[in-house]
Amino acid sequence: MGASYRLADIVAQLGGRVLGDAEVRISKVATLEKAQSTHISFLTNSKYRAQLATTKAGAIILGEADTDSTDLPRIISDNPYAYFAKVSALLNPMPAARPGVHPGATIGTGAKLDPTASIAAMAVIGEGATIGAYSIIGEGCCIGANAVIGSHARLYPGVAVYHDCVIGDNLVAHSGVVIGSDGFGFAMDGERWIKIPQVGRVVIGNDVEIGANTTIDRGALDDTVIEDGVKLDNQIQIAHNVRIGAHTVIAGCVGIAGSATIGRYCRIGGSAGILGHLQIADHVEIAAYTLIGKSIREAGSYAAIFPFSKTEDWRKNAVHLRHLDDLVKRVKVLEQELESLNVKHQNG
Amino acid sequence: MGASYRLADIVAQLGGRVLGDAEVRISKVATLEKAQSTHISFLTNSKYRAQLATTKAGAIILGEADTDSTDLPRIISDNPYAYFAKVSALLNPMPAARPGVHPGATIGTGAKLDPTASIAAMAVIGEGATIGAYSIIGEGCCIGANAVIGSHARLYPGVAVYHDCVIGDNLVAHSGVVIGSDGFGFAMDGERWIKIPQVGRVVIGNDVEIGANTTIDRGALDDTVIEDGVKLDNQIQIAHNVRIGAHTVIAGCVGIAGSATIGRYCRIGGSAGILGHLQIADHVEIAAYTLIGKSIREAGSYAAIFPFSKTEDWRKNAVHLRHLDDLVKRVKVLEQELESLNVKHQNG
Amino acid sequence: MGASYRLADIVAQLGGRVLGDAEVRISKVATLEKAQSTHISFLTNSKYRAQLATTKAGAIILGEADTDSTDLPRIISDNPYAYFAKVSALLNPMPAARPGVHPGATIGTGAKLDPTASIAAMAVIGEGATIGAYSIIGEGCCIGANAVIGSHARLYPGVAVYHDCVIGDNLVAHSGVVIGSDGFGFAMDGERWIKIPQVGRVVIGNDVEIGANTTIDRGALDDTVIEDGVKLDNQIQIAHNVRIGAHTVIAGCVGIAGSATIGRYCRIGGSAGILGHLQIADHVEIAAYTLIGKSIREAGSYAAIFPFSKTEDWRKNAVHLRHLDDLVKRVKVLEQELESLNVKHQNG
Repeated sequence: MGASYRLADIVAQLGGRVLGDAEVRISKVATLEKAQSTHISFLTNSKYRAQLATTKAGAIILGEADTDSTDLPRIISDNPYAYFAKVSALLNPMPAARPGVHPGATIGTGAKLDPTASIAAMAVIGEGATIGAYSIIGEGCCIGANAVIGSHARLYPGVAVYHDCVIGDNLVAHSGVVIGSDGFGFAMDGERWIKIPQVGRVVIGNDVEIGANTTIDRGALDDTVIEDGVKLDNQIQIAHNVRIGAHTVIAGCVGIAGSATIGRYCRIGGSAGILGHLQIADHVEIAAYTLIGKSIREAGSYAAIFPFSKTEDWRKNAVHLRHLDDLVKRVKVLEQELESLNVKHQNG
Repeated sequence: MGASYRLADIVAQLGGRVLGDAEVRISKVATLEKAQSTHISFLTNSKYRAQLATTKAGAIILGEADTDSTDLPRIISDNPYAYFAKVSALLNPMPAARPGVHPGATIGTGAKLDPTASIAAMAVIGEGATIGAYSIIGEGCCIGANAVIGSHARLYPGVAVYHDCVIGDNLVAHSGVVIGSDGFGFAMDGERWIKIPQVGRVVIGNDVEIGANTTIDRGALDDTVIEDGVKLDNQIQIAHNVRIGAHTVIAGCVGIAGSATIGRYCRIGGSAGILGHLQIADHVEIAAYTLIGKSIREAGSYAAIFPFSKTEDWRKNAVHLRHLDDLVKRVKVLEQELESLNVKHQNG
Repeated sequence: MGASYRLADIVAQLGGRVLGDAEVRISKVATLEKAQSTHISFLTNSKYRAQLATTKAGAIILGEADTDSTDLPRIISDNPYAYFAKVSALLNPMPAARPGVHPGATIGTGAKLDPTASIAAMAVIGEGATIGAYSIIGEGCCIGANAVIGSHARLYPGVAVYHDCVIGDNLVAHSGVVIGSDGFGFAMDGERWIKIPQVGRVVIGNDVEIGANTTIDRGALDDTVIEDGVKLDNQIQIAHNVRIGAHTVIAGCVGIAGSATIGRYCRIGGSAGILGHLQIADHVEIAAYTLIGKSIREAGSYAAIFPFSKTEDWRKNAVHLRHLDDLVKRVKVLEQELESLNVKHQNG
């Protein structure tokens, strides 16, 4: 297995402070429930606090407020969740890439490959494309002509980047990601649709991660833009000319329609949607399954979820949604009649 | 064309009994509407019963209750739908795989390929990966380092299985399936997100089928688990650390958030969703487009679908959803006022 | 950069008429906001009319009604949006394909490749498959045995077409498209699911475009059919035995369940869904996020969207949806009591 670290080594590298035996050696991160004596665990959700009493972990990462909640050797951090992430990264380093081009790859004329980059079997690098230092282009990836990928990228097998797209440093793109496919643009000409050429690009900043089978369309005329630090989960669809602000996170299966502009530090729940040409402010949180149908100008949390119930109950209740306007009118009539009766009664 | 079978041959292999001429030869399965004299059809949905009178089929598969609903040669089965599936499998055998490694494939050091396995052109088998007997790895598939795939698997072109994932026997995975991509885990550290390494695996049982472009993320620390006999349709997203119980079937475009646990023999409709960390009991049925926002402890059928209507009607009705709480309060006031009026009236 | 055209050249090729200096040379299409003096822009949405006053465009495409809305050189068309599309196609011609088979491709026995077709690196053409004139099969595409693709197709990298599927002329298919994967068909046999072989095909007409990562399943017995001129956005799921009528457009993330039949010239919004076996008339428009749960026999616009609000407001309102039937009954009781009180009052 991999390397191990003493708690003292860990805080020397990552900060925080140790309580208890700083010589304990740790080789793995694990949940409180599954941890063994050479593992370090963490408490970041108070619902798991009871497991502190029974865990077999060798050490725990805790927030300041939980300093005394266990006697086990522990590291105290003011952000235990981020600390756990850093310890896990320390204990699970990415395998080193092998610089160079696999003989089974195909490299187009004029492609500029940094000598530290790694191009795997079956990958195709288009003419004039650029691959930055230490970037890993996985098996079967296709990088289009004149596309630019920065340094330290990690493209898992089967990623497609279309021609002319520009990507910053530290991209992580999982299998099946498509960057730069045509936006969905057609004009009706008589009785048939004609295609509107999609001649913009996709431009992606630094430190972006893109989940498996997520698609990002190129712009129609201007570019589609994903700013620094954006994190996209799997199976997201980003239409042409969308702009996503820095450090926004988007959960799986979300769809964002054309020319929508999303702010910075937003959080968008799974299968949510944003209609075209809308603007979403910074720091907006959108619940799962919520369709946003007009612009949101104010930070805050927004939702539109139909609450589930047993199907027979749902059926009884949902039928009234088709008559809600009538119901409101009936209530209005009742209010008027009652008012009139009250008047009569007082007069009567 | 393929082989043909007498009805007598079919019941000899598959059970059931023949009524009418058991010497009729059948070469194909077809719908009642399209069937010709060398075809066998079936009745499993009573809405097609009228077609029994006009079908040109050479024979019919029927349930016991429908024994007398036609004079055509027929096979009687207590499960005519499953019987139809078996007859179709008999008449449409999968093409035999060609054992061996295509010269255009790339095999990593230490990979263990069963000599009966078939590795197609452009496929890449990672270092130390295992491919079981009679398994077919399609064109352009990438199997990660140390992944294990059991026997009789059929991976269609372009499937990605990441490193260390473990898959049982009889897997069917369609094009674009991604197994083992990173779960969506980030911790906010100051003003930026840092990645939580996803070091669990995906572990899949026997007899699982996975539809085109479905994605299954690896676990963060522990594994994501798909139990035996699970059937997943296309474009499903399964997040990290989900567990799906045996024999559950999930329709297309469903999203299941992290650490959700789904029971056995569940049926989940298209585009439904299940939020993170929830538990769903065995034998739960969830309607299409339904978001499950809390755990379901009891078998049964659940729904949350907004009923559609003409857009102008929808607009009139839906606006009131933003004021439903007011409406309920107005009704409460009416009830109180009426009660008070009734009292007055009785006293007046 | 590419070629440039005088306005006079453009109308000579595409019709319409020039007002102002017909000698202005144009090399690019751009938005009103971004256009420079060698660019042509257009007004197709009145909300951008004010930008006519400030645009730096060299020329504008306008409808008849807007003839006098600017003094800039302009082309007047009765369909300025389609005209813009045509000008853009003129200025952005597709790169010419290089006929022939890349040495890194694999061609199956008996495949019929038109000599003008282009087969890219890592592509695999199955046995007996047909590729028509001027068609481009991108990197890593897999065309199954005996599949037929017409002329002038453009398959971007990583498209999978399964065996026996039949596709007309002018197909555009973006990366990750899967055509012909198995439909989702299983029969319960005792306590396990058995597969129903999917032996139909996908049959696609002419002039169809299919967005990235969209999946179209083959039919169970009969075929799945996509008629001429259909335009499909990204990440759509089309189940087995669906038929989509000519010139229908479908936005991203839509799911269409098995055996649904969609009419001609329909427009289906993003993430909408249509349940199985339904029939949708011609010229039906379906709003985003709307689930259609029964057949639509009449042209028109249909919707079912839960309106979003701040989460705290949503929470207050949504809870009542589980008791809507009670509320309606309470209103009914109020109406009856009030009626009774009115009678008493009149009698009293």
